[in-house]
Amino acid sequence: MRLILASANPGKLREFGEAASRHGIAVEQLPGIQSLPPCVEDGLTFEANAHKKALHYSVFVKGPVFADDSGIAVEALAGAPGVRSARFAGPHANDQANNQELLAKLAAAGLEHVPARRLAHYLCVIALAERGRLLTSVEGRADGLILGEPRGSGGFGYDPLFFYPPLGKTFAELTPQEKFAVSHRGEAFRKLLDYLLRTA
Amino acid sequence: MRLILASANPGKLREFGEAASRHGIAVEQLPGIQSLPPCVEDGLTFEANAHKKALHYSVFVKGPVFADDSGIAVEALAGAPGVRSARFAGPHANDQANNQELLAKLAAAGLEHVPARRLAHYLCVIALAERGRLLTSVEGRADGLILGEPRGSGGFGYDPLFFYPPLGKTFAELTPQEKFAVSHRGEAFRKLLDYLLRTA
Repeated sequence: MRLILASANPGKLREFGEAASRHGIAVEQLPGIQSLPPCVEDGLTFEANAHKKALHYSVFVKGPVFADDSGIAVEALAGAPGVRSARFAGPHANDQANNQELLAKLAAAGLEHVPARRLAHYLCVIALAERGRLLTSVEGRADGLILGEPRGSGGFGYDPLFFYPPLGKTFAELTPQEKFAVSHRGEAFRKLLDYLLRTA
Repeated sequence: MRLILASANPGKLREFGEAASRHGIAVEQLPGIQSLPPCVEDGLTFEANAHKKALHYSVFVKGPVFADDSGIAVEALAGAPGVRSARFAGPHANDQANNQELLAKLAAAGLEHVPARRLAHYLCVIALAERGRLLTSVEGRADGLILGEPRGSGGFGYDPLFFYPPLGKTFAELTPQEKFAVSHRGEAFRKLLDYLLRTA
């Protein structure tokens, strides 16, 4: 089986590709995605954005196309940054600026020494579409808490601040394989594979 | 000023002594405490046990006597081990056995990957008594969460499992000074010193 990823992110292609290959499924990037009209990700939820992206790109190619949208929600910030995770510190913010913004907002929210305020979860929604029709939508979640300072150099996004208690490490301290085994994105993708293998 | 500690624990004497000496207060162990009739610590709360201990020992000596009782409460275990912290794995359990018992109980409670279930706090109550009369009682608290496996060799009790997010370390990974600055026992003792300096 061949599955098309609607993303220009090489990290995602590698992660998804490795996991899918074990089930005889090949993941390929949507050819020429960067020259197609872009999808405006203005949804209020991860689900809305993932659906929008998968549907948008599915009309340009034959076969099933999947897209993911993901981000982090922090307890003390009432679920922020949420869908604004990638641009929390501004429209073109990088990971470091977003991480600093998160720590600043946490400090401003107060009670930093109370870990319940630091609880956070990553969410990932993956949508699968074909020729403008939504086939399925699945969700993955990873629960952790925000540390006081970044730790580790792996991963991306808020990974250096996202501490995963069962392993006693931040997501940035895990190998890509360790991370995918417990991450929101890994969980969602395993659900997508379940769907594909069940309906194949 | 001279303050008498109703405990045979040399670690506590050192911790309290260091903190008090900065305020010109000398902490001494109750002379011959091991040959006095023991206090039965059968209270249902840390407060009850601390009061009982301070009152019990205060009749054997001149001057103010203080005693502390402390332990850990875990969210997923509805506050256990609580006052049974020191004997969670049995009447003569050591720290290692108690730590293992805590991890086993957490696993049995389920949802181990959800950090909100791992939230825990240490509590410490210090009571001050003189000649059978309670002078004051103060409480300190430290909030953290229980890791999946022990880490660090300092401290005692559940310290290797007790992760303190603002510092990103377990209590067993802190120096005695670092720990006393943020611990339940440190907070309670600073409140006791406040009381003493205010009423001196």
